[in-house]
Amino acid sequence: MYSHETSFRVRYGETDQMGFVYYGNYAQYFEVGRVEALRHLGFPYRKLEAEGVMLPVHDLQVRYHRPALYDDLVTLRTSIVSMPGVRIVFAYELRNEQGDLLTEASTTLVFVNSTDKRPCRAPQPLLDALAPYFP
Amino acid sequence: MYSHETSFRVRYGETDQMGFVYYGNYAQYFEVGRVEALRHLGFPYRKLEAEGVMLPVHDLQVRYHRPALYDDLVTLRTSIVSMPGVRIVFAYELRNEQGDLLTEASTTLVFVNSTDKRPCRAPQPLLDALAPYFP
Amino acid sequence: MYSHETSFRVRYGETDQMGFVYYGNYAQYFEVGRVEALRHLGFPYRKLEAEGVMLPVHDLQVRYHRPALYDDLVTLRTSIVSMPGVRIVFAYELRNEQGDLLTEASTTLVFVNSTDKRPCRAPQPLLDALAPYFP
Amino acid sequence: MYSHETSFRVRYGETDQMGFVYYGNYAQYFEVGRVEALRHLGFPYRKLEAEGVMLPVHDLQVRYHRPALYDDLVTLRTSIVSMPGVRIVFAYELRNEQGDLLTEASTTLVFVNSTDKRPCRAPQPLLDALAPYFP
Repeated sequence: MYSHETSFRVRYGETDQMGFVYYGNYAQYFEVGRVEALRHLGFPYRKLEAEGVMLPVHDLQVRYHRPALYDDLVTLRTSIVSMPGVRIVFAYELRNEQGDLLTEASTTLVFVNSTDKRPCRAPQPLLDALAPYFP
Repeated sequence: MYSHETSFRVRYGETDQMGFVYYGNYAQYFEVGRVEALRHLGFPYRKLEAEGVMLPVHDLQVRYHRPALYDDLVTLRTSIVSMPGVRIVFAYELRNEQGDLLTEASTTLVFVNSTDKRPCRAPQPLLDALAPYFP
Repeated sequence: MYSHETSFRVRYGETDQMGFVYYGNYAQYFEVGRVEALRHLGFPYRKLEAEGVMLPVHDLQVRYHRPALYDDLVTLRTSIVSMPGVRIVFAYELRNEQGDLLTEASTTLVFVNSTDKRPCRAPQPLLDALAPYFP
Repeated sequence: MYSHETSFRVRYGETDQMGFVYYGNYAQYFEVGRVEALRHLGFPYRKLEAEGVMLPVHDLQVRYHRPALYDDLVTLRTSIVSMPGVRIVFAYELRNEQGDLLTEASTTLVFVNSTDKRPCRAPQPLLDALAPYFP
């Protein structure tokens, strides 16, 4: 398994009148998590798109355990749980500074050739970079 | 089962540079769907909050079949699939004008007393309004 | 002057923990206003983009008089205040159901040829449609 | 004048189908800028709210010079341009890694007592912290 952690602060505009982060705004956090996880592997998502690979989201599952609050400095742990094929699965754990588990989530994304819009296999250099984590 | 349909247009700001609605923005659509479903039953969510009941989201599952596009006039069918207890489950189907199924989703929400922040049972008038749909 | 009105409800996810619509979310309302104003003239923005004209925003000014609240049914009046050239100016007034003025705003947008990314004049059919309003 | 710089990356969900950051999403960046500027002075906004002072936005002006792009590492310079009274004015300059000026903006915010919802003067400790910058 390959995991990567990234930290950021909750923005005011991400809260709602319940005083918590709005449930739909976590999806953007998970996107940040997978982008930073891929960057750390040497695959900035911007580069993937420039090379003709899109990575749309196929499904999303979230469990909200405790609310994230305004100005919380949260840490998101993003994991790639198996070698990707046409699909890649990311798992996420979001925690606050006290280490409380706030949300757990997973997403499946599909590699798509941006020319013909058809699913394709993960780029070989990405598979090579991940290979050491799945011996 | 109780179902309700509501229609609205995709906003420009809801798209991303892939040219589709950003995957995290559908959560706001589902919120609109359940708010309108409850309003049609006679329970505006604003009234629930004013009466001391909060309804935070416990979990979310989304499957993205086809992308919603800018300016699409989409229709969201929202269903309450069983009589609520401490929790209420909503299921969603989003379709475009051609009737294509774009996303399917479900959410579980928890009734919470806003004074002591503890889970509580669904308000009796809501149960009464739903009873005819679950004979 | 050409004016058009459109109404919609404030979504929960658009509020922040102050209990008001987040100040940045009004920009999306103004976009809805100008899109509907153009549609009513016979120029869906989607069609403009399909014909190779982009309309990026050059500047935005907003004055926040009173907050919009969750579930408010608000009405946005959008006006084109002068015949467009390379630029088009929209003015906005947002009111709640009681008729209270909530925000006033204006935006300047620039017609841009999407092929060469250079400013261009407003499409002639749009000028023709607006002409009766600027005798 | 008191100025503070903060840097962050553009998120995918902040772009729109034009391929640029959506014009309404910059407001959230400016909020991050003023929050970090106040934090650096010793006044986390969360603390202000906890002490009974709200700071709603009264007006916003933005000029969009060049678009911010996905994954850009942008730097926001936030300045307090004069000693605050009942109001505080922030000015913003957003630049990309090449130093290009992307947007310029300013906002006026009003100090409001959260108990009686009436405008009030800036907290004295904030004035004391700012005094050295306005000799």
